[in-house]
Amino acid sequence: MPNGSTETRSDHAAAVRAARKARAAIRDGTLTGPTSGLAPGVEQGNLVILPADWAEDFAAYCAANPRPCPLLARGRPGDPTLPELGADIDLRTDLPGYRVFRDGTQVDAPHEIGGWWRDDLVPFVIGCSFSFESALLAAGLPVRHIALQRNVAMFTTTLDTQPAGPFRGPLVVSMRPFRPNQVDAARRITAALPRSHGAPLHVGDPAALGIADLSAPDFGDPCPVEADEVPVFWACGVTPQRALEQARPPLAITHRPGMMLITDLPLPAPAPA
Amino acid sequence: MPNGSTETRSDHAAAVRAARKARAAIRDGTLTGPTSGLAPGVEQGNLVILPADWAEDFAAYCAANPRPCPLLARGRPGDPTLPELGADIDLRTDLPGYRVFRDGTQVDAPHEIGGWWRDDLVPFVIGCSFSFESALLAAGLPVRHIALQRNVAMFTTTLDTQPAGPFRGPLVVSMRPFRPNQVDAARRITAALPRSHGAPLHVGDPAALGIADLSAPDFGDPCPVEADEVPVFWACGVTPQRALEQARPPLAITHRPGMMLITDLPLPAPAPA
Repeated sequence: MPNGSTETRSDHAAAVRAARKARAAIRDGTLTGPTSGLAPGVEQGNLVILPADWAEDFAAYCAANPRPCPLLARGRPGDPTLPELGADIDLRTDLPGYRVFRDGTQVDAPHEIGGWWRDDLVPFVIGCSFSFESALLAAGLPVRHIALQRNVAMFTTTLDTQPAGPFRGPLVVSMRPFRPNQVDAARRITAALPRSHGAPLHVGDPAALGIADLSAPDFGDPCPVEADEVPVFWACGVTPQRALEQARPPLAITHRPGMMLITDLPLPAPAPA
Repeated sequence: MPNGSTETRSDHAAAVRAARKARAAIRDGTLTGPTSGLAPGVEQGNLVILPADWAEDFAAYCAANPRPCPLLARGRPGDPTLPELGADIDLRTDLPGYRVFRDGTQVDAPHEIGGWWRDDLVPFVIGCSFSFESALLAAGLPVRHIALQRNVAMFTTTLDTQPAGPFRGPLVVSMRPFRPNQVDAARRITAALPRSHGAPLHVGDPAALGIADLSAPDFGDPCPVEADEVPVFWACGVTPQRALEQARPPLAITHRPGMMLITDLPLPAPAPA
């Protein structure tokens, strides 16, 4: 069975080339959809941009909720680059879609945010479950929504995150179906990637997360679960978007669910079986 | 309404005197039951003691799961004192009950552990929801199991913690019933105490945590929920005891559920309403 332990420096160079190509295609408008399945082998990230005077509370919120909000990088006020995640990154243009919030309410869903940029904005990038999908695929585990070319299904749960300052709200999860004999491998592979939300929160019963209807996700696209499969749920980086609705900062900008920042960061090698 | 903002240095001195008195009574065998409600105004802690070569993985497990496992203190190998939590503490005698595990299976439930002590054992103390109960009581919120002089009700959920090394397992929660108009205050008060598990994970539906029968707790005592009340669930420091069962260290010692270490640490002042 193939696994990432054979990955070499040149494999990572190829992954970074693919990442730069994907960012360039997003930047020029050629690529406009969800980023799942793009540039396998590098980490993808959720984006949250806040005014500087909201940054400390948001950093505390991430630290208090590391499963939905594993912090990959925090930028400098007013600086839309993030060289630690990729030399050419411009956060104003390099994601396929954004959400702009005023006082906690979405007011715009643009494809670039140059017009919204301000000198006091601080970007945060949070790990993403798309990052571990390449690891699942590399281990021979099929990822349904990639096969269907859909966005992943995401659900607001009835679980509450730990608040920090004004940031609070429900936990959001993503769901992928697997056959029962695939679950242990999926658990082991993702558990080794805590910067990508880590191990599943729950396997099996949607009601155990307060999810009433698995066919009606709150974000993304529905994903069929076959009779011989179980739904597997991971903490999701859309969680802070719900917290923004509660915190109501005067301005906040996020990625659109499923439309992530593709970074140059290599995925860690999978854990041995 | 009384609240801790009027707490003074002399209040804390009184709380520490009460803590020392409680530890002394436990040490000499006068006090043998759960510690809930004892020494209000100081933090109580869950205890986990492991051989030194298991300590790094366990510390990583706590860091990855800060809601069930907020680490208050880590001791020195072979040293049963913890002066940072109380000058007179002797972890071999100062808790009312212990569990001793060999290879992940409980083999003893003694009232003191001097006979089990070894030079390579490292103690960890994890924050406890009993700590926030004094804050709830101080705010005029009744805590049912204290009123009934019972141990708190604790349940194993179907949610999984994030593993670290060999440590993995389900999340355990504690439950306290409140009237709906008390829930916001309970949430606000406990959210401000992240070292004591912080805000509730869930309010209302036991099934949303995979709990099938609210009258049959997995640890502690049943706690009635009246018709005009809702169950409120917090992450619980018994969680690492389930992880020990999975990790199977050759030797591990914990507190018995509900029988905590009473420390000298002052509780933070409650958040303003």
